Amino acid sequence: ANSRSLQACKNALPRRHANTHKGNQGSALLIGGNRSMMGAIQLAASSALKSGCGLCKVVSQNEHLLFLSAQQPEVMGYDISHANQLILQADAIAIGPGLGTDEWARKLLQQTLQKPTKTPIVIDADGLKLLAENPNMEPIENLICTPHPGEAALLLGCTTADIQRDRIAAIKTLQQKYGGVMVLKGNGSLIYDGTHLELCRAGNPGMAIGGMGDVLTGTIVALLAQGLSAFDAACLGVHLHANAADSIAQQKGQAGLLPSELGQCYPQLLG
Amino acid sequence: ANSRSLQACKNALPRRHANTHKGNQGSALLIGGNRSMMGAIQLAASSALKSGCGLCKVVSQNEHLLFLSAQQPEVMGYDISHANQLILQADAIAIGPGLGTDEWARKLLQQTLQKPTKTPIVIDADGLKLLAENPNMEPIENLICTPHPGEAALLLGCTTADIQRDRIAAIKTLQQKYGGVMVLKGNGSLIYDGTHLELCRAGNPGMAIGGMGDVLTGTIVALLAQGLSAFDAACLGVHLHANAADSIAQQKGQAGLLPSELGQCYPQLLG
Amino acid sequence: ANSRSLQACKNALPRRHANTHKGNQGSALLIGGNRSMMGAIQLAASSALKSGCGLCKVVSQNEHLLFLSAQQPEVMGYDISHANQLILQADAIAIGPGLGTDEWARKLLQQTLQKPTKTPIVIDADGLKLLAENPNMEPIENLICTPHPGEAALLLGCTTADIQRDRIAAIKTLQQKYGGVMVLKGNGSLIYDGTHLELCRAGNPGMAIGGMGDVLTGTIVALLAQGLSAFDAACLGVHLHANAADSIAQQKGQAGLLPSELGQCYPQLLG
Amino acid sequence: ANSRSLQACKNALPRRHANTHKGNQGSALLIGGNRSMMGAIQLAASSALKSGCGLCKVVSQNEHLLFLSAQQPEVMGYDISHANQLILQADAIAIGPGLGTDEWARKLLQQTLQKPTKTPIVIDADGLKLLAENPNMEPIENLICTPHPGEAALLLGCTTADIQRDRIAAIKTLQQKYGGVMVLKGNGSLIYDGTHLELCRAGNPGMAIGGMGDVLTGTIVALLAQGLSAFDAACLGVHLHANAADSIAQQKGQAGLLPSELGQCYPQLLG
Repeated sequence: ANSRSLQACKNALPRRHANTHKGNQGSALLIGGNRSMMGAIQLAASSALKSGCGLCKVVSQNEHLLFLSAQQPEVMGYDISHANQLILQADAIAIGPGLGTDEWARKLLQQTLQKPTKTPIVIDADGLKLLAENPNMEPIENLICTPHPGEAALLLGCTTADIQRDRIAAIKTLQQKYGGVMVLKGNGSLIYDGTHLELCRAGNPGMAIGGMGDVLTGTIVALLAQGLSAFDAACLGVHLHANAADSIAQQKGQAGLLPSELGQCYPQLLG
Repeated sequence: ANSRSLQACKNALPRRHANTHKGNQGSALLIGGNRSMMGAIQLAASSALKSGCGLCKVVSQNEHLLFLSAQQPEVMGYDISHANQLILQADAIAIGPGLGTDEWARKLLQQTLQKPTKTPIVIDADGLKLLAENPNMEPIENLICTPHPGEAALLLGCTTADIQRDRIAAIKTLQQKYGGVMVLKGNGSLIYDGTHLELCRAGNPGMAIGGMGDVLTGTIVALLAQGLSAFDAACLGVHLHANAADSIAQQKGQAGLLPSELGQCYPQLLG
Repeated sequence: ANSRSLQACKNALPRRHANTHKGNQGSALLIGGNRSMMGAIQLAASSALKSGCGLCKVVSQNEHLLFLSAQQPEVMGYDISHANQLILQADAIAIGPGLGTDEWARKLLQQTLQKPTKTPIVIDADGLKLLAENPNMEPIENLICTPHPGEAALLLGCTTADIQRDRIAAIKTLQQKYGGVMVLKGNGSLIYDGTHLELCRAGNPGMAIGGMGDVLTGTIVALLAQGLSAFDAACLGVHLHANAADSIAQQKGQAGLLPSELGQCYPQLLG
Repeated sequence: ANSRSLQACKNALPRRHANTHKGNQGSALLIGGNRSMMGAIQLAASSALKSGCGLCKVVSQNEHLLFLSAQQPEVMGYDISHANQLILQADAIAIGPGLGTDEWARKLLQQTLQKPTKTPIVIDADGLKLLAENPNMEPIENLICTPHPGEAALLLGCTTADIQRDRIAAIKTLQQKYGGVMVLKGNGSLIYDGTHLELCRAGNPGMAIGGMGDVLTGTIVALLAQGLSAFDAACLGVHLHANAADSIAQQKGQAGLLPSELGQCYPQLLG
């Protein structure tokens, strides 16, 4: 596996033109945050904004929208009734953080999979659980999946131990089955697109806390919205996320490192 | 076009008397934040407070008022039933951030346009869309409009490319059509009052993110409320906003620069 | 008028015993925050906590309680049905910030005035308006009033200009009429208890913003709850408040100085 | 009594494996936050997260869940209907902060006491009040109680003065009566497991403020979830909590030291 630095991954990020505006810095759409899981989409959305997208739109439960906006006023929140139109307009879509697996969740995933072919899509968390239920699904265009080992096991119908025993074999099998770009999270996250295999050596055990994956999802979708290829966005996203965690851990320590704290390091790491 | 420094623009700001009190530091009224767009008015209101007004009142949807107050306890929130009275009392009014274009929005704009003649008014965002629908409207006294190129195109019935091809011609045409002071946002924001043309050389591509315009609107209305002329408020507001963004970008980087972060730089830049 | 330093005023603050606990650091009760005025009581409560009281209880509209607690989890919020009991238990009471003047407000003021004789009470803002309506009211024991010049004018049935023309005469008249300790806010705040007259030379014009008075009220009630005499609490509160504002203004500037920012300076100034 | 340093207590904390993940960093379950007492569980949950647990789940009143999540998006909130299942799954449970003493509270305590034997449980605050009502209760396995002197008096049916007169005798009696590990809070907190007696010499009078105990509870349950023994978790928790308060007091001062501020010091102290 190749192992680039954050610096090398950053070369993929297009230089901002002097004349850029919010309309061409990328509109990211994040779908998730079912009842009792608002925090996951909140983490993803804030991370997307700190990753530099021009617009960050969220589809979540109606009762969450004011809370999401109050905490992060740059977020534009919508309920499910707007999903179809938002899916058509987005430059990149992420679905999964706090999505749940009920009818609301299934309907949103179904609508999302009818996205324009060219629109890149990140599927994470509960989105991956739903994906795993449909092993004979047609291939999804411009797909990025970001499973942790447990989710990878679900997707492949094996055990987590199987995944961890040979992570490189696992990510290759995942990619053969689902296509697109796979990110296999964990100590030494792997990124694979069917040709290139990338290993991220950054990161630390302080990242073992719920919500870290949601932040990664938000990061990647924002990079996709800015025009990076799926593989480049996944590589840069994983490196940025891990380097931010390392930066905080070096300053403060690994224990008590919170997902909501990563974004504050992004501008400096991206600059 | 003239191109003053922030320092030069600051000369317009009246020195605070030792005996000043909240009642004569200016009462700014901000109108907007329709359903699903609370964040826009929240950004504008917080920016107004950091720009030094004595009172910051907001008219928004009733369901937003507790959220707005909780996030920024200095904001005084009201629903539409108080709009007429607040419009009479305000030292300066801004309408548009997250206003929407439904009946609620139209009614508020209509009420606002019946403001006392002398009260300066900033129209932005959806307020400009509504304005563009009424090309034969009577001139509005003490008007500032703050369109980005897309909104300028709507106001002139042309394309965004037309605007950008000759920004100076565009702002002059806008000013002839609508009177008052025009701010044409973008790389090198222009300010024009029919006589003086100002170009802001500050700012950076990190400002290409939704919500930046709302912050500018809040900044300008707060300066108006403090007694600056429309042209001086527009010039100082644009410079302050751009310099704050440059200050953060220099410290941290351009990507992930959020509108909600600008205000923290205002006191130092205004001091 | 005497003009002590913050340092001198701090001598009144009892040294914390090694064995102190939340139950004897003083329980402050703050009453206010009527509909559309939640921010005022929020500012007062947070300031009370930063001023060192052991418990900070708030009576506000029921719909505000979760917002108040969410923003400042140390606040204990209650609706009007608990007011009578809380008034009996408090070590010090403040009423007025965002109180309004409707039936809810009047009922709360009436209940508050039936407090135990020994319990010190700060009346501010709308509480003063209600007080001014009842010129023949019986004297209130252990009273501190904190009018700005406009409220002082209401209390004395004269104009604000009358107050400002001779502030020392005004505060003396106020004290003769209402008893207790009077604080006449403004440039050079005065504190008078019928014998001692204190002038605060600290403070700056950046304090001319809505909410600054609410912060002062929270500060004074917390000091009262910690056992300071009414005069000492008023003197220390005024000095602490003004010095905090000066400290921020020196670091950042006067414009955009927000009431919600003062409390962060209190521990250092009190230390 | 033995008196170890924070450094010595930290030796009990297992070193994080490079391959750790959120699923084996410990899932802490916190139960409390009845109506009008949301702040207590909010403080406890945020502290648990800053203490390094992998997952932090909360059972509170349904109406609190969105507020809890909005303020701390890493918190996973549930209402009482999920309690039984969450109790089965948790690595460690804390019950008490803001629990109240009504039917909701009693039902939750009852359900909690049916936890798996091996699951450690911290009982605090209102949980201790309910415990005191049932003097003939069967012994609770893997119990930690964290009474302040007033709660200890309730548990022993004596006065607070009795407790304070001989704190070592008191904690020994408590431990004999209830088993498990007892923490007797106050100036010089004691920890006792029936054999070892630990005295914490850190801490300062600025900790005399409501909410400090909730923070300690959240800290201990997170350490338990990470696999520390009950005694080690209690010792490290008490030391961490006191050292964090000392760290802030040294930087800023004792007055106005807020419970919600402690967690920011935890990573550095644990690192």
